[in-house]
Amino acid sequence: MADTARHIRAAHQLRILSDALDSGRLGPVRRLVNTLSPAEIGNLLESLPPTRRNVVWGLVDPEDDGEVLLHVGEDVRESLLAEMDPDEIVAALEDLDIDDLAELMDDLPEAVTAEVLRSMDRENRERLEQALSYPEDTAGRLMNPDVVTVRADATVEVVLRYLRLRGELPENTDRLYVANRRHQYLGQVALSDLLTREPSTPINTLIDDAQPAIPVHTPANEVANRFSDHDWISAPVVDENNVLLGRITIDDVVDIIRDQAEHRALGAAGLDEDEDLFASPLRAMRRRSLWLGINLALAFVVASIIGLFEATLEQVVALAVLMPIVASMGGNAGLQAMTLTVRGLALGQLGSSNVRPLMVKEITVGVLNGLLWAVVVAAAAGLWFGSPMLALAIAAAMTINLVFAAAAGVGIPLLLRRMNIDPAIAGSIVVTLFTDAIGFFAFLSMGTLLLVP
Amino acid sequence: MADTARHIRAAHQLRILSDALDSGRLGPVRRLVNTLSPAEIGNLLESLPPTRRNVVWGLVDPEDDGEVLLHVGEDVRESLLAEMDPDEIVAALEDLDIDDLAELMDDLPEAVTAEVLRSMDRENRERLEQALSYPEDTAGRLMNPDVVTVRADATVEVVLRYLRLRGELPENTDRLYVANRRHQYLGQVALSDLLTREPSTPINTLIDDAQPAIPVHTPANEVANRFSDHDWISAPVVDENNVLLGRITIDDVVDIIRDQAEHRALGAAGLDEDEDLFASPLRAMRRRSLWLGINLALAFVVASIIGLFEATLEQVVALAVLMPIVASMGGNAGLQAMTLTVRGLALGQLGSSNVRPLMVKEITVGVLNGLLWAVVVAAAAGLWFGSPMLALAIAAAMTINLVFAAAAGVGIPLLLRRMNIDPAIAGSIVVTLFTDAIGFFAFLSMGTLLLVP
Repeated sequence: MADTARHIRAAHQLRILSDALDSGRLGPVRRLVNTLSPAEIGNLLESLPPTRRNVVWGLVDPEDDGEVLLHVGEDVRESLLAEMDPDEIVAALEDLDIDDLAELMDDLPEAVTAEVLRSMDRENRERLEQALSYPEDTAGRLMNPDVVTVRADATVEVVLRYLRLRGELPENTDRLYVANRRHQYLGQVALSDLLTREPSTPINTLIDDAQPAIPVHTPANEVANRFSDHDWISAPVVDENNVLLGRITIDDVVDIIRDQAEHRALGAAGLDEDEDLFASPLRAMRRRSLWLGINLALAFVVASIIGLFEATLEQVVALAVLMPIVASMGGNAGLQAMTLTVRGLALGQLGSSNVRPLMVKEITVGVLNGLLWAVVVAAAAGLWFGSPMLALAIAAAMTINLVFAAAAGVGIPLLLRRMNIDPAIAGSIVVTLFTDAIGFFAFLSMGTLLLVP
Repeated sequence: MADTARHIRAAHQLRILSDALDSGRLGPVRRLVNTLSPAEIGNLLESLPPTRRNVVWGLVDPEDDGEVLLHVGEDVRESLLAEMDPDEIVAALEDLDIDDLAELMDDLPEAVTAEVLRSMDRENRERLEQALSYPEDTAGRLMNPDVVTVRADATVEVVLRYLRLRGELPENTDRLYVANRRHQYLGQVALSDLLTREPSTPINTLIDDAQPAIPVHTPANEVANRFSDHDWISAPVVDENNVLLGRITIDDVVDIIRDQAEHRALGAAGLDEDEDLFASPLRAMRRRSLWLGINLALAFVVASIIGLFEATLEQVVALAVLMPIVASMGGNAGLQAMTLTVRGLALGQLGSSNVRPLMVKEITVGVLNGLLWAVVVAAAAGLWFGSPMLALAIAAAMTINLVFAAAAGVGIPLLLRRMNIDPAIAGSIVVTLFTDAIGFFAFLSMGTLLLVP
């Protein structure tokens, strides 16, 4: 099972914490909470129902507040911010890096945003305003402007002397960037090279220019893909004139990489990544009702197809009994083809050149599955109702539906994408509408042909 | 849309490649392919139907073969290995790190495994055998045994001299590990500290021992969780006596982090992460048939519930027309609650202490949704069939089903987990069985009560 270890560990913390909360002694809770990393505290807060969440949030070391806010989904973040005074928020954000601060700023009440900006020194304020000037979900928002640059004409010795003078390097620095006078990006030098080469070595012999810099307006998803395609730990960010603006590190990208898959896992049920497990029921209901409303409209379309066959159903009630079987098998087979197609689209593996082979493969799978399950279902239905004609009708309908399901599973996500509708979200209800409609129609029209006297 | 940028870029490569393949001139294809990183080539190969995949695989620079094999799913890897001679495989694996090699060894034919081991020098063979001695999906398999250690009693100057003598450091080294004589792990020193401190600084004043080492038998998922909880770039691995064995870097962990979410996205359709988009139809059919077979059995259970009401259906055929609406709404609402619960379980956010509040919240959502949609569906059905009693029956059934759906969406994944069945895979069919069964039963029994004379 994929997540057992984490489950056990986190559930264990949760139980200890819950017992301590029950006992009403907050000292032990505070001690427990503050042994955790900010990401773990975030995970814990997401697991707590609102009342307990607020109690525990009050016990978190104020120094960690900012980092914790970074590690929770947007809905939970909103609920935590609602519990804080403006002063507390300003204090919580004080120690954050510029990129992290920029991420939070969008979620803050406007009065607080102004206060945060006022509380900063001019240099940091300018850097934050700069970061906020880039659109959300782009490289500009992910980068940290704190980078160390050296000149190509220096030697290792000069650089070492400069670094000792400079003191501490930004967190997770594994390489320095080489830039020219106009601060344009030329390449990078690994810290490990500085350590292993002779002091007299010129920097320009150590420059690694294999890694292209990321343009500042690159979408965050594309940044994540480049990181995972190249196993990067960090990457330089430049403007349109190749001027070095900052540096993105993998820890800022890991969440995006995970969310790309998470988006599909949740989207298929019409949910989004920021959904709070313990949202207020009214809010949760509102969030889900658009999805359910569309589903209801589609269900009426399906019902109206069944309605065409009222006369048949009146005469052969066994059709009503068996018809959900045809629809359900079609739905499942369709979702299998759709899930693969949606993943292929997300990973950029599907384009005009290979849609046809995929369609051919999935339809072949549909035919094979259709024939296999037609035989099984015909045997079972035939035995149950003792009617060979009924068995024939369901076998034919099953084969037809599984073939159409395969085509729909591949075709519908592609169509949705072309219409600029996210197939990860809309795919499953549209495919199910289609397989239900085809399944009921095929079965009931077969039934009308073969069974109505 | 989550993945548009990657989609555009990769689809573009795919089209160029496809055009070049169509033209039959392989020179441009080879040049294009070899401008890509191994991960990009892997992604590309996964996008190609079998014939083209084999052509392109033959054009990949043999030096990249090993890295490419690492970057494809298991099914595709198998299809690529099947195209290679044993000699080619041995050559492809030559330059890989020990941890990467260990990952591939499990998928190799036994004759090739022996040949690979024979072709290695003794030191590397021993290291590989060591790596293979750890169970799959544990820290032991992820780590690279190539680490640089220093002594606590040295000074920065001594270490710098040692590093210059030693030459190149292992890839992605951002810190050195401090160990004692018995090679036990004491802490780490950041390369940036070595660069910024005075040469006379003793190493023991620079040791950072905040990061705990990872025990070698830690499951891979747990390793991934620690990395993402603490924003680590790398971590030391130790045996039960705290002896340093190796080092895990984030690039080896990113794939696991992604797969945790991917597992849920694919599992809900009964697929697994290694499924090949272009698997042979027979293989794909076999893979999916267990899932469809279980679904069929469950669909017959649902049909037998409908069968209980044959007499009612004969008299009120409108019930047969409308019953899929009740089932479909219940299914969707149930999947929403289930998807949230399965994610909560995967993230370790659900334990005995907060299941009840989640259940209460979801049931409240179910009641609210139930009432809302009951009114809508009753109005629509009442208008359609002109029967207030029918409207009342569907309203009651809808409310009942949405409440049960909420309870099932939370309860069934928890129950499955307790039975050691992966809720990410089994959850959706079991929840749907439940909501179908309740939906049909509630609606048809209401119909019998209210509509049968």
